[in-house]
Amino acid sequence: MELIVKKFGGSCLADQAAMKNAARIVSETCKSGAKVIAVVSAQGNTTDLLIRRAAALSDTPSDRELDVIMSAGEQLSAALLSIAVNEAGASAISLLGWQAGIATNGKFGSARIQNIDLKRIKTELQTHDAVVVAGFQGVDRFGNMTTLGRGGSDTTAVAVAAAFGASRCEIYSRIDGIYTADPAVVPEAVKLKEIDYGAMQELAFLGVKVLNPRAVELAQKYGVVLEVRSAFSDSAGTIIRENAKMEKMLISGVTKKSETALIRISGLEDSAAAFHMFGLLASAYINVDIILQSAVTQGNGEIAFTVEKENADDAVRLIRESGICPENALFCDKNVSKVSVVGVGMESHHGVAKAIFEALSKEKINVRLISSSELRFSVVVQKEDADRTVRAIHRVFINV
Amino acid sequence: MELIVKKFGGSCLADQAAMKNAARIVSETCKSGAKVIAVVSAQGNTTDLLIRRAAALSDTPSDRELDVIMSAGEQLSAALLSIAVNEAGASAISLLGWQAGIATNGKFGSARIQNIDLKRIKTELQTHDAVVVAGFQGVDRFGNMTTLGRGGSDTTAVAVAAAFGASRCEIYSRIDGIYTADPAVVPEAVKLKEIDYGAMQELAFLGVKVLNPRAVELAQKYGVVLEVRSAFSDSAGTIIRENAKMEKMLISGVTKKSETALIRISGLEDSAAAFHMFGLLASAYINVDIILQSAVTQGNGEIAFTVEKENADDAVRLIRESGICPENALFCDKNVSKVSVVGVGMESHHGVAKAIFEALSKEKINVRLISSSELRFSVVVQKEDADRTVRAIHRVFINV
Repeated sequence: MELIVKKFGGSCLADQAAMKNAARIVSETCKSGAKVIAVVSAQGNTTDLLIRRAAALSDTPSDRELDVIMSAGEQLSAALLSIAVNEAGASAISLLGWQAGIATNGKFGSARIQNIDLKRIKTELQTHDAVVVAGFQGVDRFGNMTTLGRGGSDTTAVAVAAAFGASRCEIYSRIDGIYTADPAVVPEAVKLKEIDYGAMQELAFLGVKVLNPRAVELAQKYGVVLEVRSAFSDSAGTIIRENAKMEKMLISGVTKKSETALIRISGLEDSAAAFHMFGLLASAYINVDIILQSAVTQGNGEIAFTVEKENADDAVRLIRESGICPENALFCDKNVSKVSVVGVGMESHHGVAKAIFEALSKEKINVRLISSSELRFSVVVQKEDADRTVRAIHRVFINV
Repeated sequence: MELIVKKFGGSCLADQAAMKNAARIVSETCKSGAKVIAVVSAQGNTTDLLIRRAAALSDTPSDRELDVIMSAGEQLSAALLSIAVNEAGASAISLLGWQAGIATNGKFGSARIQNIDLKRIKTELQTHDAVVVAGFQGVDRFGNMTTLGRGGSDTTAVAVAAAFGASRCEIYSRIDGIYTADPAVVPEAVKLKEIDYGAMQELAFLGVKVLNPRAVELAQKYGVVLEVRSAFSDSAGTIIRENAKMEKMLISGVTKKSETALIRISGLEDSAAAFHMFGLLASAYINVDIILQSAVTQGNGEIAFTVEKENADDAVRLIRESGICPENALFCDKNVSKVSVVGVGMESHHGVAKAIFEALSKEKINVRLISSSELRFSVVVQKEDADRTVRAIHRVFINV
């Protein structure tokens, strides 16, 4: 019998009406003769509300206890969706992470799935049409609850689909597919029928929030075909798979990421100092993107890079404490956005950089930092210029 | 090292201030050199709110899924209290029912604890000052989450105290002890220093909500000394133990229970019919209290009894379907209260009934039903007469 994994994001479960709609989607698939594993996120902004309650009690709540608190969100939506599916005429049962055999390492707050013991889900699928699995959560080898970090339900869904060799993993949200740019910013943006794993991963990493990049990586590794689609519309979504047909389009999309901070350091002693600094940031789990380093000669090296905005203060503190540069040679600008074009073969198309620069200079947009790779081309601009930058770059590529 | 079990009711954890107060109580005990197992209820009215969300999706939500939903309440308060205790300077860790080894049978919604595996709690107590256990919940042998029914956290606390041979089990709520009557109804009510298990069980069964009767039964069985006390005052509470000193007082208290319905049946064929009917009610888990049966002769037997108000409609339906009496011979009155006097040796004191009747007749209170046993004397009155009845009876005994 066919087995389909359906992941429902928080917006698809936010209230009673949304919950019933998700239940209808599950039960209709069941009635068509397939078994369904539904993986759910917490309802709406539940996770944020829960974290706030812990933060009210302590500035430094334990990560372990935070995971106990946060996982209650998916626990509730799993049981509620299960009730709604039963009401919609298919039989369902909920399983929490520890019940569904989702074994993770013990890194609370950002645990990694190490193994899925399929026994319990298989048993329940023999007597039920659907199993509703609480996403985002697992259990470590000591029996502690863990969570997988933001977007972790996507990872749960893909991991379960991979473990079962499911024919499809459908990712439901309010958004009906992957567009060449955010339609709210670029009205002429086009929905993609298909996209490659690699390009999707870059888009997710660079600001397209509909899918977690780690989940895309996992899907690629195990060959799970994904479909991003809306829970509130019947229109076909975007398929994510290997060797997607891109319909003559060079690029997959233009994205904007505003949760970015630009850090610039001057007066560096030597390259070793920079190397030391990136080591420090890495061991604090701070990801660094777009690095631009000028030639370092004795005492006047300069380096600039971007980090996630939420990590900016930690990064600045670490660099300051390390003493690798004078106090007054460290700058951090949180008022920037990173705008990126994602596509295959960006570097080999010499025209790309030229076309982008022409477009941005015509718009009088000041570019702070540039980087390009095989799959993407990014510029860092002032935040207030970001939407104009997206539109200008989108015009260059989509009208070609 | 001394081990004390402290149970915190929902009102002791309802908001941030209450949570910090409970954390202070735990940490102060830890600092005095004892280890603490804190057992927690859900915050405030969380359980009701959670049930309502399930009820919005289905009129007949599965009991199993309801237990998954409800247990999220204690899950949150356990992790939050653990965070607050750490903040208050003692080290704590939370454990959910399944983590704490609370094994129950599979009767969702009203499961019974069958066994407690102490391993995990013991391990955590070696490295922490306090373990915070989510009350009210357990796990069945298939790994499903279960809940113990209303007041189930009391049962968890007593069961854990019994399993550990803890020297004390303190039950914290807003109420600072057991009174001879509700002080809101009877201003001259007196707080008891001590009370026997049996009398406490009767009081709990008859309307004193501060303690679950099943928990008192369990405490008696395993000789766990209980103390009912307030989380918001330092005054001594009421100790519940075997052979409590009752200080010359005949009675332990006067209680009122308004969640009561009176059912009356006339025109019964014979005693066998009544016997059959009580069998039906028992197999539907409907508890019957105070039964008054007139002599049954052919076709004119009459019987009256009380049930919990929430079971009244089910009871009436069952009796009607059984056809043991004519349709028009079945009456149900939900507008009644049961007022009871609890004490040792009620039946052997012939003066008791006489004194009560004199007091009630002076107040012109119409008594619908009477019953007495070794431990209590109850009358059923119209609900609007209930508080006057409590006051009148309390005057009889406390002023003696």
